[in-house]
Amino acid sequence: MKLPGQEESDVSSAYENVPTGELDSGPGSRPSPSGSSDTDSRELGVTKDPLLFIQLNELMGWPKALEWRETGRWVLFEEKLEVGAGRWSAPHVPTVALPSLQKLRSLLAEGLVLLDCPARSLLELVEQVTGVESLSPELREHLQSLLLQRPQHLIQGTDTRLCWGSAHPREASHDEEAPLKEQRQNPLRKKLPPGAEVGAVLAGELGFLAQPLGAFVRLRDPVVLGPLTEVSLPSRFFCLLLGPPTLGRSYREMGRAVAILLSDPQFQWSARRASSLHDLLAALDAFLEEVTVLPPGRWDPTARISPPKCLPSQHKRLPLQMQEAKSPSAWRRARFEHRRGHLPHEPSPELQRTGRLFGGLVQDVRRKASWYPSDFLDALHPQCLSAVLYIYLATITNAITFGGLLGEATDGAQGVLESFLGTAVAGAAFCLMAGQPLTILSSTGPVLVFERLLFSFSRDYSLDYLPFRLWVGIWVATFCLVLVATEASVLVRYFTRFTEEGFCALISLIFIYDAVSKMLSLTYAYPIQRPGSPAYGCFCQYPDPGGNESQWTRTKPKDRDDILSMDLGLVNASLLPPPECARRGGHPRGPGCHTVPDIAFLSLLLFLTSFFFAVALKHVKTSRFFPSVVRKVLSDFSSVLAILLGCGLDAFLGLATPKLMVPKEFKPTLPGRGWLVSPFGANPWWLSVAAALPALLLSILIFMDQQITAVILNRAEYRLQKGAGFHLDLFCVAVLMLLTSALGLPWYVSATVISLAHMDSLRRESRACALGEPPSFLGIREQRLTGLMVFLLTGISVFLAPVLKFIPMPVLYGIFLYMGVAAISSIQFTKRVQLLLMPAKHQPDLLLLRHVPLSRVHLFTAIQLVCLGLLWIVKSTPAAIIFPIMLLGLVGVRKALEWVFSPQELLWLDELMPEKKSIPEKRLAPEYSFSASDSEDSDLMYQPKAPEINISVN
Amino acid sequence: MKLPGQEESDVSSAYENVPTGELDSGPGSRPSPSGSSDTDSRELGVTKDPLLFIQLNELMGWPKALEWRETGRWVLFEEKLEVGAGRWSAPHVPTVALPSLQKLRSLLAEGLVLLDCPARSLLELVEQVTGVESLSPELREHLQSLLLQRPQHLIQGTDTRLCWGSAHPREASHDEEAPLKEQRQNPLRKKLPPGAEVGAVLAGELGFLAQPLGAFVRLRDPVVLGPLTEVSLPSRFFCLLLGPPTLGRSYREMGRAVAILLSDPQFQWSARRASSLHDLLAALDAFLEEVTVLPPGRWDPTARISPPKCLPSQHKRLPLQMQEAKSPSAWRRARFEHRRGHLPHEPSPELQRTGRLFGGLVQDVRRKASWYPSDFLDALHPQCLSAVLYIYLATITNAITFGGLLGEATDGAQGVLESFLGTAVAGAAFCLMAGQPLTILSSTGPVLVFERLLFSFSRDYSLDYLPFRLWVGIWVATFCLVLVATEASVLVRYFTRFTEEGFCALISLIFIYDAVSKMLSLTYAYPIQRPGSPAYGCFCQYPDPGGNESQWTRTKPKDRDDILSMDLGLVNASLLPPPECARRGGHPRGPGCHTVPDIAFLSLLLFLTSFFFAVALKHVKTSRFFPSVVRKVLSDFSSVLAILLGCGLDAFLGLATPKLMVPKEFKPTLPGRGWLVSPFGANPWWLSVAAALPALLLSILIFMDQQITAVILNRAEYRLQKGAGFHLDLFCVAVLMLLTSALGLPWYVSATVISLAHMDSLRRESRACALGEPPSFLGIREQRLTGLMVFLLTGISVFLAPVLKFIPMPVLYGIFLYMGVAAISSIQFTKRVQLLLMPAKHQPDLLLLRHVPLSRVHLFTAIQLVCLGLLWIVKSTPAAIIFPIMLLGLVGVRKALEWVFSPQELLWLDELMPEKKSIPEKRLAPEYSFSASDSEDSDLMYQPKAPEINISVN
Repeated sequence: MKLPGQEESDVSSAYENVPTGELDSGPGSRPSPSGSSDTDSRELGVTKDPLLFIQLNELMGWPKALEWRETGRWVLFEEKLEVGAGRWSAPHVPTVALPSLQKLRSLLAEGLVLLDCPARSLLELVEQVTGVESLSPELREHLQSLLLQRPQHLIQGTDTRLCWGSAHPREASHDEEAPLKEQRQNPLRKKLPPGAEVGAVLAGELGFLAQPLGAFVRLRDPVVLGPLTEVSLPSRFFCLLLGPPTLGRSYREMGRAVAILLSDPQFQWSARRASSLHDLLAALDAFLEEVTVLPPGRWDPTARISPPKCLPSQHKRLPLQMQEAKSPSAWRRARFEHRRGHLPHEPSPELQRTGRLFGGLVQDVRRKASWYPSDFLDALHPQCLSAVLYIYLATITNAITFGGLLGEATDGAQGVLESFLGTAVAGAAFCLMAGQPLTILSSTGPVLVFERLLFSFSRDYSLDYLPFRLWVGIWVATFCLVLVATEASVLVRYFTRFTEEGFCALISLIFIYDAVSKMLSLTYAYPIQRPGSPAYGCFCQYPDPGGNESQWTRTKPKDRDDILSMDLGLVNASLLPPPECARRGGHPRGPGCHTVPDIAFLSLLLFLTSFFFAVALKHVKTSRFFPSVVRKVLSDFSSVLAILLGCGLDAFLGLATPKLMVPKEFKPTLPGRGWLVSPFGANPWWLSVAAALPALLLSILIFMDQQITAVILNRAEYRLQKGAGFHLDLFCVAVLMLLTSALGLPWYVSATVISLAHMDSLRRESRACALGEPPSFLGIREQRLTGLMVFLLTGISVFLAPVLKFIPMPVLYGIFLYMGVAAISSIQFTKRVQLLLMPAKHQPDLLLLRHVPLSRVHLFTAIQLVCLGLLWIVKSTPAAIIFPIMLLGLVGVRKALEWVFSPQELLWLDELMPEKKSIPEKRLAPEYSFSASDSEDSDLMYQPKAPEINISVN
Repeated sequence: MKLPGQEESDVSSAYENVPTGELDSGPGSRPSPSGSSDTDSRELGVTKDPLLFIQLNELMGWPKALEWRETGRWVLFEEKLEVGAGRWSAPHVPTVALPSLQKLRSLLAEGLVLLDCPARSLLELVEQVTGVESLSPELREHLQSLLLQRPQHLIQGTDTRLCWGSAHPREASHDEEAPLKEQRQNPLRKKLPPGAEVGAVLAGELGFLAQPLGAFVRLRDPVVLGPLTEVSLPSRFFCLLLGPPTLGRSYREMGRAVAILLSDPQFQWSARRASSLHDLLAALDAFLEEVTVLPPGRWDPTARISPPKCLPSQHKRLPLQMQEAKSPSAWRRARFEHRRGHLPHEPSPELQRTGRLFGGLVQDVRRKASWYPSDFLDALHPQCLSAVLYIYLATITNAITFGGLLGEATDGAQGVLESFLGTAVAGAAFCLMAGQPLTILSSTGPVLVFERLLFSFSRDYSLDYLPFRLWVGIWVATFCLVLVATEASVLVRYFTRFTEEGFCALISLIFIYDAVSKMLSLTYAYPIQRPGSPAYGCFCQYPDPGGNESQWTRTKPKDRDDILSMDLGLVNASLLPPPECARRGGHPRGPGCHTVPDIAFLSLLLFLTSFFFAVALKHVKTSRFFPSVVRKVLSDFSSVLAILLGCGLDAFLGLATPKLMVPKEFKPTLPGRGWLVSPFGANPWWLSVAAALPALLLSILIFMDQQITAVILNRAEYRLQKGAGFHLDLFCVAVLMLLTSALGLPWYVSATVISLAHMDSLRRESRACALGEPPSFLGIREQRLTGLMVFLLTGISVFLAPVLKFIPMPVLYGIFLYMGVAAISSIQFTKRVQLLLMPAKHQPDLLLLRHVPLSRVHLFTAIQLVCLGLLWIVKSTPAAIIFPIMLLGLVGVRKALEWVFSPQELLWLDELMPEKKSIPEKRLAPEYSFSASDSEDSDLMYQPKAPEINISVN
């Protein structure tokens, strides 16, 4: 069973689990019910309440062996003790029967409510609670000793070894204040944030009571109540619900009801501030006003609902006067803009045009300079070390794969060695200079595609590739500088999802097509031998003692049929295999001498193995097996592991599969060139001018690739403190373009996926992650050192190059295919294409399907498909090299779509372009005018978007 | 998000979706609240209420363009109109805010309630509803014309073409009674069962009303209310909720609340019988008593919950006096026994011992004879035709796979031809004679394993296999007759899940091991050619004109090295491929002449392709793609399609892979034998006596295999009317054993999976399957004709045999592997083994984990693993043939487990053995004594078990 909100955010990213300001800013940030509404208090975090851990101790064993046992606990969600199994259940959404809440209300109304009770120990508290009641003295004493009895807690060690907290349940504790051994050992303690408080609920049936006994206590100063609670944290709330066993009045369920109430942020907020019973009951009634009801005939109340991925926003539960301050729809709209968060309503300061030449660049430099020292100091944390290791492995995997493919595509003009060297040099330089040092520079799909096209173009016209490429690089750098000068980066706001998806889909398809076609080309290079085919005939022929090659030469066959059927007559020959034959001075003769059997199928096997293994490992992350650390490692290093597996399989079988070509020494892959590319080579001088044309195309491509990545990285949901540097980044890319072109190294831009992985490995999170709540996200360790270390290590790895010659090419093709498939699977476009194949009733409950007619969704998808088809056709013609312009054309197509689709449809299918952001809200959301209380207007709509695009295929 | 109850029943089977008596017997079967409790009324189905379809028409467009639009509909679950998207949402569990229910209650209390209203048309109804109110005349007229306005319905055609029901919303309908075109065309109509009634709810905000207007009408005689409702069915209920727009009082939500109430079986039951407003409000209060509440802070009310696989039982909601009739725990216990339903508390009449020789057989014959004519007449239904086609394809796939493997295992003593012939003869005979004609006889895994062992045994001792086998068959038939005579079949009650799982796991593992080892043996037969290996040297040498073989013969090399290095001197040779060479009178010479390259890897590819393709196709059933018919076909014929794909791939590449051996004409596969096996052959006479020993083992195996299948097939949840025939079935198997042994055909017993598929294809179901409710199960078409037809077609297919020689063996090995993997994946044991690898917090919420400590679960699994290990060791020794006795030993191990585990643990991990069924209930469920209201005591516990075992691997 999937919830609709979970459907939209399939791309697994830890970011989506961040509750928007639930734990860190908390419900206390809301304006107090008395009326002083102050929205900014959330940002300031002034009235932050501590986290409340609630536990339910239940009285069991009546009448023979009375004992308290902890049977439930709550922070955000409920964990229930499975009595039979002796374990805590998985956290789940708490549900309770309505009568329990109502009975609780009446019990509280009749019972004892002590707000700001001054008790300083469990004993004092128990005396207070039992003292004021109209109980007989011996009953009171009996009750007091019962309440002081040490309860049993199930403490689950990290090694899943269970221990029941209390061996002697009847032994009263003498030293109440000192934490007990079981409490200190409780791993739960470490998961609760500092300052957390406890709410203890005691409930049960007690035969000797004549009437129910209910007490709700808020302690003035929270105090550790001895062994009462599982963790030795100070208790803030104490609730006692006891009574005679009566049919239909379950104190256990009432206890659960109190616990659920206290775990509700709104009720807890009120309970902390209530000054009378009346306030408390009003808070309970407010809770009842907002509960959702499940009908008994359609829902089994014992079924457990897993915690939703996204908690409902507490914004919605603001007091009424606050909501009325703005018009309802304006309020809704503002929330929408705020939480959708893909492109901010107002462009971020980094994307505002200054109007001066290089104005953006100057601002970027000024802004980043002030952070420069901290960019190194902030890296002093052990987490950075593991981030370095992780990103280093990802980077060299990339360098190997792209280097290998580039080497093949350019006949060795580029290669693995250049890839390593270039990555190290360009990456390190970028980390030191860039505006956004979290960015990882890498070979990306679009640039690789362009370089391949450029090479085949220069080969077709017999140009000297590297000098030509140098001039292209020089021009690209120039154009990029012009773009920096004119602050062109602010135009990225016109790249909507439509453009991003077209970009990503085309590059992914090129990857997939290339991987498969390269694999198939191996079957031509190593043909399969069908029965009856003559391919496996091969002689070793020795020259005559006289030195001439005897009859063979004389009767040299004209064609294949001849050699098969003719009588060879007198020859000096043996069946030695060709290498051995040559060593002994003979000549291999025959059609089968150069064919190697079994290679084609083995290559196919290696290709499929590495592809499927990488896919399977990637999915390990969401499997139930193994501890999460192991799962994370397996999933994060899926490509590395798949390559290693492929190499191992190949080495085990020992066949002569085609391998990665690596020069034996530290010199350029292309024989006979130095490290510096000569500016003209064999090319005519005017080619240096003509290179401006392809450079223009490449500039478009680099601009798009670089800036889309930059926008994604600098999204608001990552809460970056040090700001972006769009102009500075592009400037750095331009400078590095010049450097890599001069040295004949590959070209680099920022790579989305690897940069996101870098950020992800540097997340700062609160440690509170027990009981089903997601850890709360505090920010990113923004610094330059991890990136720098990664690229220094990559530089050192140049000397690893000789080891790389053991990597079979089919394995790399498999990884290449995996990259293409992963990238194209990550975009919403793919999901919409899948919708075309699904009957309407089986379609997932995507939010956009709730709002846009299916036919319109299909039309939008069809238009994207047509665009993609056109791009593919252009790519397949000799004019392939102009595809960057076609990509840019997508922006125009997107503009034209405004004539076909309504703004509201585009809002769901894509996003709005800048000038459309100010259309009248009536037009934007016409359906809201139908009914004011449309329940579609839900928080699911406002979920922050996950970084859902794998734009750079890396 | 998965619900716990869904976890346990992973094995996809249509049977699990059957709501236990919800739709067909219905809530009306419960005793009336007045007190006359009559549990048998459920079985008799006396007071069956019709199904109620509820629709909500909402008033929209206030104040400018008032119109009614249907925005919600309910049967079991809610479907909501997605206004923006113009489609119905997927059915989901309805949820509503508590205040809506409370406001509805007060509106009803103040408003008009007409029970048994005599109105005969919409006009009369509207007059009644508006007449009694204190409305001014012009307001009344205005209101009446508004209520008579034709509402808009979204009618979704089967081709997902949408049409809005009413083109002229303002045109009042003149002929109210005649169904409109849109109503007639509504595909929903066909999905609702005959006799269904409608409840129409009209709600909305109406500015000109001064005060709310609420009316609840129950019509005395249901009547079609013209165009008011989407379907032209008579309406029983009519509810009107209108009022001035007021903040916080949403009539739409109140309308939803009424609809949800009416869709609740308990409330509906009461509403149909209420005689006053008081009754109605009491029913509403009873509903509120039972609702489950979701806290607002932890659950987004707009999230939609998918329909649970298993609806909560309405037994639970019986009136209190009924529940008190028995003691609570006895009541719980009885339900448990009733609904768990795996082995009935009392053995079924077929399994009761008569105490007379052949008493059971005589009873079986007597019972079945009376049904014999109907066994043919009941088959006259088109559904049977498709069942024949489906089971025929499954049967021949089985015959090919098992025949091919048997042929290989027995060196051609059995083969594909025998497999076809034997299946046809034995199957048809069984269908005509058997006690349970739904059973499909087939080669099953255990028997195949035994036959393989028997063959290798007879080869080791140089016995003449077929005559030896004939005697084994004669003895088995004798032993089986003894078992029939002594009514041994009643012992099947001692086969618990522990035994079944051991049986299934061992056979599956043998399948998996065999498939892989056979595949690997191909790489020895067709070795891979490593670089430098000389395998591809091959001459074609011609004899001298004189006829002698010239120098070659003289210098015939002693070993391999010679041939490689020696100077061949003068030879008449060419490089013709070996077959061509032989055709021209030459002789292929050299080490490479008999090796065929590429076969090993191609075989591996075919093996993997057919395995993964079969797995993938099997999973298509649960995918979202394609219409369900296509999915069902692809999934049901996954093996056939995988074989076809493998053959196609092999034919496309055209390599000489090893193929299935099929005789060219209609004669036994073993050359030189006739159809009748000679009774002694080359064997000594005493072997006919000694054959009794292996026959004893085989009898055990056949008894277990046959009877476990029979028990599964005759489970109560299939509601078979004509009874089982355990003794008669075993008798038939014994007779057919004799026949097949004499003709040298394979041995057959009942096969679980294919028989279940047969039953499944003959299910009778109610047609009501709209709106998320599962279709209700009416029974099985029990007859003999479909089976008979299947086997006649199989007989005819013997002449297809020559086509089968195109099937490559690796493809069959792949299917074999798939069968093994599918069988072992289907048992709970596998799930428990997986638990060993899962960290406790990631484990699925299996019910057994809620009740049994994890360490005990692991212990049980470990014991099963040890048993399996021992069985495997025995299987690998020369004593392999005694493994049936070891399997029987599992029953003993299970008995011994009663010393290790408590009965309650065994109840969850396994099931109880017959004599343990009467243990004191206190011991059985000790945890219930802790707390009377333990919410674990849920319906999820009592779900009927799905047929979860694939025991026969076929």
